Amino acid sequence: MTAKKHALSVTRDEDFSAWYQAVIIGASIAENSSVRGCMVIKPFGFAIWERMQSILDSKFKELGHSNCYFPLLIPVDLFEREAEHVAGFAKEMAIVTHHRIEYKDGKFIPSSPLETPLAIRPTSELIIGESMSRWVNSYRDLPILINQWCNVIRWEMRTRMFLRTSEFLWQEGHTAHETEEEARLEAKTMHDVYQWFIEDVLKMYCIPGEKPEHDRFAGAVKTLTIEAMMQDGKSLQMATSHYLGNNFAKAVNIQFQGRDGSLHYAHTTSWGSTTRMIGGLIMAHADDDGLNLPSQVAPYHVTIIPILKGISQDGEIIEYCHEIKQSIQKDSRVFVDLKEIPAQNKKWDYVRKGIPFICEIGINELQNKTVFFTRRANELEKVRMSLEEFAASIGEFIREHDEILKRKNALSCSQKMIYGIKTFEELKDFFSQSSGFVMAKWSGSKENLEQIDELAISIRCLPREQSGDLGKCILTGKDATIDIVLAKSY
Amino acid sequence: MTAKKHALSVTRDEDFSAWYQAVIIGASIAENSSVRGCMVIKPFGFAIWERMQSILDSKFKELGHSNCYFPLLIPVDLFEREAEHVAGFAKEMAIVTHHRIEYKDGKFIPSSPLETPLAIRPTSELIIGESMSRWVNSYRDLPILINQWCNVIRWEMRTRMFLRTSEFLWQEGHTAHETEEEARLEAKTMHDVYQWFIEDVLKMYCIPGEKPEHDRFAGAVKTLTIEAMMQDGKSLQMATSHYLGNNFAKAVNIQFQGRDGSLHYAHTTSWGSTTRMIGGLIMAHADDDGLNLPSQVAPYHVTIIPILKGISQDGEIIEYCHEIKQSIQKDSRVFVDLKEIPAQNKKWDYVRKGIPFICEIGINELQNKTVFFTRRANELEKVRMSLEEFAASIGEFIREHDEILKRKNALSCSQKMIYGIKTFEELKDFFSQSSGFVMAKWSGSKENLEQIDELAISIRCLPREQSGDLGKCILTGKDATIDIVLAKSY
Repeated sequence: MTAKKHALSVTRDEDFSAWYQAVIIGASIAENSSVRGCMVIKPFGFAIWERMQSILDSKFKELGHSNCYFPLLIPVDLFEREAEHVAGFAKEMAIVTHHRIEYKDGKFIPSSPLETPLAIRPTSELIIGESMSRWVNSYRDLPILINQWCNVIRWEMRTRMFLRTSEFLWQEGHTAHETEEEARLEAKTMHDVYQWFIEDVLKMYCIPGEKPEHDRFAGAVKTLTIEAMMQDGKSLQMATSHYLGNNFAKAVNIQFQGRDGSLHYAHTTSWGSTTRMIGGLIMAHADDDGLNLPSQVAPYHVTIIPILKGISQDGEIIEYCHEIKQSIQKDSRVFVDLKEIPAQNKKWDYVRKGIPFICEIGINELQNKTVFFTRRANELEKVRMSLEEFAASIGEFIREHDEILKRKNALSCSQKMIYGIKTFEELKDFFSQSSGFVMAKWSGSKENLEQIDELAISIRCLPREQSGDLGKCILTGKDATIDIVLAKSY
Repeated sequence: MTAKKHALSVTRDEDFSAWYQAVIIGASIAENSSVRGCMVIKPFGFAIWERMQSILDSKFKELGHSNCYFPLLIPVDLFEREAEHVAGFAKEMAIVTHHRIEYKDGKFIPSSPLETPLAIRPTSELIIGESMSRWVNSYRDLPILINQWCNVIRWEMRTRMFLRTSEFLWQEGHTAHETEEEARLEAKTMHDVYQWFIEDVLKMYCIPGEKPEHDRFAGAVKTLTIEAMMQDGKSLQMATSHYLGNNFAKAVNIQFQGRDGSLHYAHTTSWGSTTRMIGGLIMAHADDDGLNLPSQVAPYHVTIIPILKGISQDGEIIEYCHEIKQSIQKDSRVFVDLKEIPAQNKKWDYVRKGIPFICEIGINELQNKTVFFTRRANELEKVRMSLEEFAASIGEFIREHDEILKRKNALSCSQKMIYGIKTFEELKDFFSQSSGFVMAKWSGSKENLEQIDELAISIRCLPREQSGDLGKCILTGKDATIDIVLAKSY
């Protein structure tokens, strides 16, 4: 028996974690840096992030949000204003204490201590809220709808590229509203935007829902989440949206004169998504040959590799490659790769990068005006057709490509959606040997919650769609109506 | 005598520095934050920056550069690898020394010290060079052409919004090449890109040139600069491009196997431009009524303000505003302002923001199908014309607007270009009572250089266009051929 060969040295079945690293390295998406817990996002990975940014940014602006920029460094004492918030982030803040280095005993050491230590932002509710407090006087100044694309630091002891790094890139939306109703609607609307992005753009299956109280964002009244299932059955939180009540408005004094003439605190929200989504994209769509990119975030849909043999027709082959590009660039993003690297190496590089269509063009294709290409998502199927047909079909091929990714992901996820587990014993048995999304009932009480931690799983969310049916609480055996999703997670 | 009224409370002549602040506040571009030395870039200011980014980013990509992202935090010992570089930045680095805070005696204090202190990047030559050293093996891997858009920190004791802030946003390009010739060409090409951007996009007069040796970037072999003249006759360095020789390649070991089979160090460059350009834009084009925006970086070219009087035709007036928008949006960016604020306040807000064309549309305009508008750059000239004519002319009006800005700026600058100062005494006299760009001769030696510091001026650059004529060195009186620009600067 000969094993099927793959473009990666390790498969998902052999070692999911090593495979994940292999996809990232194989596609030149990112690499670890010499700085503990921080990664380098390489050109191909960053091009994916730029496409994600551009799509989300347009949507945010369409909904009336403006981009801003607020300071990276936040005085530590500002955090003290919101007790839950500081408790939530105190253990993972990078703290700046000095503002120069000086040479002493053969090395550079920190000097010139700061009067007040500054934290590198782990998130910006307080520093942005402080500005909002200056911007808001009357209800006429509301709503304030802003967003910022930036880097944040949350110190992590155990890191993993994209999923858990000390520094990451993200967007953080922050809004202030006149009424609770409006602010709750904003949090819900942005939750919907994330769901749209993850389902319709990234072609991933996900469950939108609410976090249980004990797992809310530090300082939030309500935390909405998008939980996506990875191919190993674990859950990845892809984005969150929070209704913050008056908590932060009170901490930083965002007060306004209302329609009734008296002073009120604003209701605020925040919502964010990060480079972590690239990790999710990988674990949802990549296979043992590498990445698979949904078309909207793919730097290229088509790459064209000329097969040159040092023969007199080489020039014509290159010209023909450009002709193919001309014929399809109206409907797709195309790259003709003229680098001096063997064609087979290029092809496998693009397979690992997840480029949807990889064309190999040699003397045969030139003479017959055909295109020979590999369909990345379709088991690397090889197809040959006339240039005319290829040009007429490329738009449809790209739609099919996305459909295939969506279908495969949905199928893989549906196989790991577990129903029918009714007792804690069954739950324990299941997670001791397997993983997946277990749909169960919960009473909503904290009783026996610690048992869940012991299984190294968590309540990922209370799905937005609640059946309302009566059942037995997975933790207490008592009557319960709340549907929950339990899973291991990243 | 009645003084002309202005939209700002202070004029350039009264107090240039206070006027600069008033422009920024009046146009809601930015504000100081509660964090020492760091500012908040507000939505209108950030929209200008986004347009700058988008124009430069497209140009960088057109020239083959890819965006990446590298860590914010850099181990202090990495800086020690390049002696001049660390000396240049040691006095202004924010240093992270702890990775959590804990509650003690009623307040939060830093805890969990790091083994190696980390500097927040003041620039990224070393951390990016370190990655390049992993990416380069053979001459076939070169050139590497990358860029990153990010925040950096250079600790400043005396700060000024956009011009000198502890944190600022920028792009930093970093490239590695096989030969010195290629790297020098890259540094020159990017210098040309900045000149194009400042002259053709920002419509500012500038002098491109080279920094004298004593004022090069720390670690560079050659530093190219764009010096722009502000309305007070001072110079602002708008962007720089450096040829770094092998200095950084040796520090971080960017070595490759050359065409001759032996190992060589790469030749590297770096080039950057920052949010400081917004400060330059203000000091070049703003007037006593506020900002003036060149069309390519203006968030809007046209704003339309409905003049509503609580009459029955109000609905029709708003409809007509949208009709105007429809008629001109092919050739311009338009915003219909429906906020519940008095129309006069809106108008003066847009004057202060520097929107090129501000339309006020009431019952009269509705009934006659006309447009009444203020031309911001043209002494607030008020014009009325038919909608048809306005729609047909808007593209041309925008071109004229840019021409006016360019002409005014060139005129203002030419009046402050000083020739004919031949001795140090004359130079001293001039700068003791005035400011401007003094064109003089220099021998290139360091003799008497310290006298220049005493005048609080500096050699801004050796302009790219050198006459080659023989003259007398402004510092020593000896024969000299090098043309230099001397000025006060920000």
